[in-house]
Amino acid sequence: MGRTAAVAGASGYAGGELLRILLAHPGIEIGALTAGGSAGTRLGEHQPHLLPLADRILAETSVDNLAGHDVVFLALPHGRSAAIAEQLGDDVLVVDCGADFRLADSAAWERFYGSPHAGTWPYGLPELPGGREALAGARRIAVPGCHVTTATLALAPAFDADIAEPDVVVVAVTGTSGAGKAPKPHLIGSEVMGSAGPYGVGGAHRHNPEIVQNLSGVAGTPVTLSFTPVLAPMSRGILATCTAPLKPGVTVQAARTTYERRLSAEPFVHLLPEGTWPTTAMTLGANTALVQVTVDEAANRLVAIAAIDNLTKGTAGGAVQSANIALGLPETTGLPLTGVAP
Amino acid sequence: MGRTAAVAGASGYAGGELLRILLAHPGIEIGALTAGGSAGTRLGEHQPHLLPLADRILAETSVDNLAGHDVVFLALPHGRSAAIAEQLGDDVLVVDCGADFRLADSAAWERFYGSPHAGTWPYGLPELPGGREALAGARRIAVPGCHVTTATLALAPAFDADIAEPDVVVVAVTGTSGAGKAPKPHLIGSEVMGSAGPYGVGGAHRHNPEIVQNLSGVAGTPVTLSFTPVLAPMSRGILATCTAPLKPGVTVQAARTTYERRLSAEPFVHLLPEGTWPTTAMTLGANTALVQVTVDEAANRLVAIAAIDNLTKGTAGGAVQSANIALGLPETTGLPLTGVAP
Amino acid sequence: MGRTAAVAGASGYAGGELLRILLAHPGIEIGALTAGGSAGTRLGEHQPHLLPLADRILAETSVDNLAGHDVVFLALPHGRSAAIAEQLGDDVLVVDCGADFRLADSAAWERFYGSPHAGTWPYGLPELPGGREALAGARRIAVPGCHVTTATLALAPAFDADIAEPDVVVVAVTGTSGAGKAPKPHLIGSEVMGSAGPYGVGGAHRHNPEIVQNLSGVAGTPVTLSFTPVLAPMSRGILATCTAPLKPGVTVQAARTTYERRLSAEPFVHLLPEGTWPTTAMTLGANTALVQVTVDEAANRLVAIAAIDNLTKGTAGGAVQSANIALGLPETTGLPLTGVAP
Amino acid sequence: MGRTAAVAGASGYAGGELLRILLAHPGIEIGALTAGGSAGTRLGEHQPHLLPLADRILAETSVDNLAGHDVVFLALPHGRSAAIAEQLGDDVLVVDCGADFRLADSAAWERFYGSPHAGTWPYGLPELPGGREALAGARRIAVPGCHVTTATLALAPAFDADIAEPDVVVVAVTGTSGAGKAPKPHLIGSEVMGSAGPYGVGGAHRHNPEIVQNLSGVAGTPVTLSFTPVLAPMSRGILATCTAPLKPGVTVQAARTTYERRLSAEPFVHLLPEGTWPTTAMTLGANTALVQVTVDEAANRLVAIAAIDNLTKGTAGGAVQSANIALGLPETTGLPLTGVAP
Repeated sequence: MGRTAAVAGASGYAGGELLRILLAHPGIEIGALTAGGSAGTRLGEHQPHLLPLADRILAETSVDNLAGHDVVFLALPHGRSAAIAEQLGDDVLVVDCGADFRLADSAAWERFYGSPHAGTWPYGLPELPGGREALAGARRIAVPGCHVTTATLALAPAFDADIAEPDVVVVAVTGTSGAGKAPKPHLIGSEVMGSAGPYGVGGAHRHNPEIVQNLSGVAGTPVTLSFTPVLAPMSRGILATCTAPLKPGVTVQAARTTYERRLSAEPFVHLLPEGTWPTTAMTLGANTALVQVTVDEAANRLVAIAAIDNLTKGTAGGAVQSANIALGLPETTGLPLTGVAP
Repeated sequence: MGRTAAVAGASGYAGGELLRILLAHPGIEIGALTAGGSAGTRLGEHQPHLLPLADRILAETSVDNLAGHDVVFLALPHGRSAAIAEQLGDDVLVVDCGADFRLADSAAWERFYGSPHAGTWPYGLPELPGGREALAGARRIAVPGCHVTTATLALAPAFDADIAEPDVVVVAVTGTSGAGKAPKPHLIGSEVMGSAGPYGVGGAHRHNPEIVQNLSGVAGTPVTLSFTPVLAPMSRGILATCTAPLKPGVTVQAARTTYERRLSAEPFVHLLPEGTWPTTAMTLGANTALVQVTVDEAANRLVAIAAIDNLTKGTAGGAVQSANIALGLPETTGLPLTGVAP
Repeated sequence: MGRTAAVAGASGYAGGELLRILLAHPGIEIGALTAGGSAGTRLGEHQPHLLPLADRILAETSVDNLAGHDVVFLALPHGRSAAIAEQLGDDVLVVDCGADFRLADSAAWERFYGSPHAGTWPYGLPELPGGREALAGARRIAVPGCHVTTATLALAPAFDADIAEPDVVVVAVTGTSGAGKAPKPHLIGSEVMGSAGPYGVGGAHRHNPEIVQNLSGVAGTPVTLSFTPVLAPMSRGILATCTAPLKPGVTVQAARTTYERRLSAEPFVHLLPEGTWPTTAMTLGANTALVQVTVDEAANRLVAIAAIDNLTKGTAGGAVQSANIALGLPETTGLPLTGVAP
Repeated sequence: MGRTAAVAGASGYAGGELLRILLAHPGIEIGALTAGGSAGTRLGEHQPHLLPLADRILAETSVDNLAGHDVVFLALPHGRSAAIAEQLGDDVLVVDCGADFRLADSAAWERFYGSPHAGTWPYGLPELPGGREALAGARRIAVPGCHVTTATLALAPAFDADIAEPDVVVVAVTGTSGAGKAPKPHLIGSEVMGSAGPYGVGGAHRHNPEIVQNLSGVAGTPVTLSFTPVLAPMSRGILATCTAPLKPGVTVQAARTTYERRLSAEPFVHLLPEGTWPTTAMTLGANTALVQVTVDEAANRLVAIAAIDNLTKGTAGGAVQSANIALGLPETTGLPLTGVAP
């Protein structure tokens, strides 16, 4: 009530999803909307689904335009956030949907992003052990990568309970919106429809070190990761199939109980009933993560699968969830629990 | 506030969409959920996207289970509504998402549905001239067919202003969810994906007489209709391309002004800025209809195109919009104006 | 058999489809492959589905590289073909998949393309009355636009038999590949999937005057056309729903007989059995057009619907079919009659 | 030349793909087409894309109707093949696209299929070490499961060269056509489009023991497998992401050389150029498997990814390839090397 938020990068997919959520948020009023190349145009040209904001004109992304709000959401290309955040002052909550402040390890940052490391901000994944404490009262939040949220939510309960060996294989089927709105040859509809194909194979994806960071933190020991994202013909959604060798003696019942205990109090992470597996369609437009877990006895592996909407729980919804905590609002304020299906 | 609603047919697509909307409706509390063959099962088995209701058990669709609510939404197969409505009493608002009470012409009913005509209820399209008056205080509402809503919203302004000849051609591209959840060979994903195909060609579709009824009513003269629905590879959405010969002397400016005047006060029907054409993606999950109109001078035809989400504005959202009016609530209560995109 | 063909524009969708067909053509050997910006790269980078040609290096599109073949297929941007064709000599068969030489009316060309008219070549639609005669021995062929082929094949039998009034409404649902491979914001997968939207509305599409040209030619009288293409979430395929007022006294049986007579000898245009309507999936990768016709008595309209694969019968297959005639080969040589489904 | 083939199960997806291939096969003539519940109907009702066979009437699937051909392709539900094969005689080549005769281990069969084991036939994967020898002159062939073909082709070179530990994780993204044509609730388009979801998780999929059988055979030691198939919104295609721990000292160059050596002579399995990863779209309708391999140094894992068309190389094309060998024809006869893209 009375809090205002600016959104930088309002013409993109993450920016549009932030606005969709904020339009329904009772505690935050939408302030300035800014963009880069699209500054000066109507928001309706870029986000025709956001009718109530259609006639708003996009301002230039600048400190001047972003200042004076209680919250500033940044949905900018990598490397742009630090300069803006510095000038916004410590009383403003800055929530960065980009990668700049996610990694604690500068060497890992430089290896994967090829530029100097900007620093590390409080990490916007409340479901991590200690996650909410780290966010309470924070004035800076680094929103996790969408693949990172999915894989971490799927496997954190297992490593927190020490039921799996720290040698993880994740294959994540993902929609195209995670790649953003800039037109590239391999992203046009004619290429995407009817096709599944991997990218960033062999440890090359930038979300790799961030998944390792999260799972190693939870496990209390370095976790090894093989991660392969696969682009599938859908706009939204990530389905991460995650496996790891079982610690000796872990039964399917024990694995399930472990997950039940750790997830029962989570407002947005739901363990599905036994025998039901998540699909991305179940989460469309919702801030939920759906999880299921089982044990493959013959392979001696834990199999945990999570589905999220990459733009909601994976980006904009997760950002608002963490912002709610930082602002002292109830964590679920304004966040959709119901998806749009079919 | 204090009003309760039962939903009959809660396991289907229309029922699920009604529940998605009602979950966010501040003036209506969700009461009994009933089903036919799925009675006794968890709602979560059928609507996994509606997490807050996942553990609700579906009751049998019966008068006993539906009685005692302020509103009863019926999302049932054709021919089932009359018997239930009769026994619910006149103080209950019964909103029928099925076809039984849409048509005024018994002969047209029998020709297209092959069964005795059940009667005619107040018609749930507030945007029709006189539409809101007919719904104020109503205790029975017949929700229009989804194709009917689309074509009527696209062309009613033209016939209301008498700028087009009553000889209409409508081709409506539609997603698959309008065909419901019952598995049929031509609806499986392998057949639908990558394919566009017509159905109900040559005047055979059941929404045909209902479109004629609406447009003839607005025009004040019998309208002739050629209607072809085309199934396209998407779950939701209808895009209706509607053309009719121009009355003499109608310019594109005049056509646009006509539409602006008639739509400017509508909360859910938006005339897009000149040069922007609607897409179904702009409306996903929203109760909005997006409209654009132009004049094809060489063909001497008005071209009006409307897009809606067939399950929201086309069914469940339209039902709640009309119910709001009947209950004396603000018409827009609880209805989403923003779609989910991309 | 001894004949060689060069393909200019081999890195694009039309070029790729030409090569797919020529690889299976027993009478034509593939010679030079040329491109613009992609010259110097492996074909496999652009057409990974054409394994037998993967290691061929693309040459620059130039007269030097194209000369010395019996046939030159041009799949180039508009306006590029004339200069090349002039220098290739009259003994070479030049088949232009672009628009430059399709229209007979220079004024129509300039109105729709905004550049000087290059001329008019023999028209590559053998199914038109007199179409094969015009192509026999030709050394220049203008391949029709994909929407044009669809609409013409659907309606030519009706106008040839004079059973419909010359006032046509066509709505054509089309896949994205017709828009080519150049990445544009509205064509990326995230925008296209789950969405249907019109373009070129109100007579603005460049295929408009070409459809008028064909149908007017068959009808022997000027035909009026309202044409609306609608982009749907699929890579290939056009489904054209075409209607026109009936001439007095035309019954559904008469319409069907008319189509049967005119299509029974066509190798690639098939009238489906009564009650079966075409879908685009039935034609994927085949050089076939599937047609169905009926009469809407209430609307007094003929409804004819045709489906093709826009890249095969709509572009590359049609080009090879016409080239076969011009070269004196059996018309069906090397052309697929069977689609790939599901 | 002169050889005839009958296809049992001609109305299904595997049957349709067999016919599409056989129509272009110069050494096999199509004989009887049989079906179960669809006997007596036109093939065109079920396979409208196979125009040249549209008017063929389906016979009852019976020994009488199948006898008298040189080859009988069975595309039947599990458990139906043994009785037919027994009565067809040893001079007939019987190619079973079903599972009945794939497994050597009766206990594994009974565990996964729940019925008595029918036996073991020569295995239709020529690319296995010794695979062609086993098929030469065979009169019975068991065609592998589609997931099995994909995973085996991806990993066989590694195990044949002993560069990976026998502890495999496979996640296979697959289109819907592998689930067949029978309509089921979770397979309708509205459920499938826009969604990715796993099935048969935790070792429950029937292709599990068959992958283990193949890889263990190649490795010469028991291989452990974690296999998760994921349904994606596309009709055709399987993309299998396969990883296994590296044997000590294996570099990416060594892995690549290993694959090059083992695949260079294969007519249908192609190792893509370095840095290019397979997509399913590259294989649509082709009998090819596209493979790429790399080493994830941080995870110490080999990552091999293969893409096929599940109906072509994964079923019908693989069946014809093996039949060619058994009949003494060149292995590639009549098999498409070029896919249909985009």
